[in-house]
Amino acid sequence: MENTERIEAALEAALALQQGPEGPPLLAAAMRDAVFPGGARIRPHLTLAVAQACGAEDLNLAAAGGAAIELMHCASLVHDDLPCFDNALTRRGRPSVFAAHGERLAVLAGDALIVAAFQSLAHTGATQPQRLIPMISTLSVAVGAPSGIIAGQAWECEPRVSLSDYQRAKTGALFVAATASGAQAAGTDANPWRALGELLGEAYQVADDIRDVACDSEMLGKPAGQDVTHGRPSSAGELGLTGAVQLFDQLIAHASASIPACRGSAQLRTLLRMEAKRLVPNDLVRKFAPSVTRVVA
Amino acid sequence: MENTERIEAALEAALALQQGPEGPPLLAAAMRDAVFPGGARIRPHLTLAVAQACGAEDLNLAAAGGAAIELMHCASLVHDDLPCFDNALTRRGRPSVFAAHGERLAVLAGDALIVAAFQSLAHTGATQPQRLIPMISTLSVAVGAPSGIIAGQAWECEPRVSLSDYQRAKTGALFVAATASGAQAAGTDANPWRALGELLGEAYQVADDIRDVACDSEMLGKPAGQDVTHGRPSSAGELGLTGAVQLFDQLIAHASASIPACRGSAQLRTLLRMEAKRLVPNDLVRKFAPSVTRVVA
Repeated sequence: MENTERIEAALEAALALQQGPEGPPLLAAAMRDAVFPGGARIRPHLTLAVAQACGAEDLNLAAAGGAAIELMHCASLVHDDLPCFDNALTRRGRPSVFAAHGERLAVLAGDALIVAAFQSLAHTGATQPQRLIPMISTLSVAVGAPSGIIAGQAWECEPRVSLSDYQRAKTGALFVAATASGAQAAGTDANPWRALGELLGEAYQVADDIRDVACDSEMLGKPAGQDVTHGRPSSAGELGLTGAVQLFDQLIAHASASIPACRGSAQLRTLLRMEAKRLVPNDLVRKFAPSVTRVVA
Repeated sequence: MENTERIEAALEAALALQQGPEGPPLLAAAMRDAVFPGGARIRPHLTLAVAQACGAEDLNLAAAGGAAIELMHCASLVHDDLPCFDNALTRRGRPSVFAAHGERLAVLAGDALIVAAFQSLAHTGATQPQRLIPMISTLSVAVGAPSGIIAGQAWECEPRVSLSDYQRAKTGALFVAATASGAQAAGTDANPWRALGELLGEAYQVADDIRDVACDSEMLGKPAGQDVTHGRPSSAGELGLTGAVQLFDQLIAHASASIPACRGSAQLRTLLRMEAKRLVPNDLVRKFAPSVTRVVA
């Protein structure tokens, strides 16, 4: 089975635990719309790639860990799109959950997806508690306060915020969870893998800032120019597009260098290079930052 | 240590896992306001009482399980009070989290409390996975779809709903979790304890309906008459106050009869009788339903 299929199957299995004829059908529909069809599933792909690089013999637990992280990501998008935050009517080229199902079901679908993440992870990992319990801790830290994605979103409510604290929590935390839980699912030490998650999270945030400025809404599948509209800190705003592309390439280079010695390190480096070019394509660099000679070639 | 102290200590420990100088202070304040000072902590008291009745040798895990259920209850109150649901400005006699901290922090505080519930339970139960993992499953089922409290709230968004489905999910689910996880924390079978949770959940809902009609806002610590205002199904509305008090007393009698044979069954029955009189006091019955001869005396 390919990783893409593994991830989709794990997400389906997670939602299946919360489906049933006795439940309210509109909530079930809102939950499905929040998860399918997804984006690039970048975080669960990372979890599986790290688990494979660590030599995991069975990928079910890694897939469940990656799916749990993706469910948290989906939940955060649903709540971020609410009227009190971004008031975003589109997401991934379709109506946002709030636009399609109303504010009340968007609040509840996000809540239920947070529960689904823990529930499905514990369900799959029940027979391997010595791996499962650290994965639950990793997931909790990445999502809750003081430094997970919920805390990241909460920084938008504070009178003062540092760009690095904000982005580390808002985006970086789930990437650290993705690499750490891949290692934990393989039964190996998560700590040497945290730097990779941190650097990729930062790179992903910079790529998102670049795309928010350089791409139009149709290409993004969500409204463009949101950072400026909401006065949010943005590396592309601070450094300009040229500086932001240079920073992105540096972060990818550091991420690649941070990969611990392991069975599948070469393959993981190749994957990283491909992903970097998908996130910030050469075409886009030639158009908006023509003076940059890319490190990621 | 008394159970009240055990519960408050477990709640403090759960919040401590999500506190830190690196986190956004307004989110931390909103989370604390959602949890402290609490109400009667009826669900965690029930978890501890069942664990004690089952002869639990160590109450830490039961306290963590009860606290996790209470955190879910607090999270649901915070989200239920949002403008898109009840738009409630007061709760437990103080400003609701939304009124005090704004809509955005109320959404995020509720989210973080759901995470805190799983995180703190897994943290305390890490050394007893054979008890912990069923408790995580119990908690998930009680909170998520298709029949937990989130589904219960979602029934309010459906065009048609049966009173019993709505109340079983919205209130009953956490009571079933409370009795079941008490048994699971003691290492015993949860199934014989589910009926007690169901009956108490139903009784508690009926008591709430009675109080919503019979008490004023000051006594309730939240706006009175909410069921009528929001057109919600209510047993006091359907049966009148006299019928609702009779139903309440019957449910308590059935709950008491459902207690499985165990070491502490007599003590648990005494506790139940006291709790019933706290929820629907004799004074209130004499005033609003004088024709009723109480079964719970």
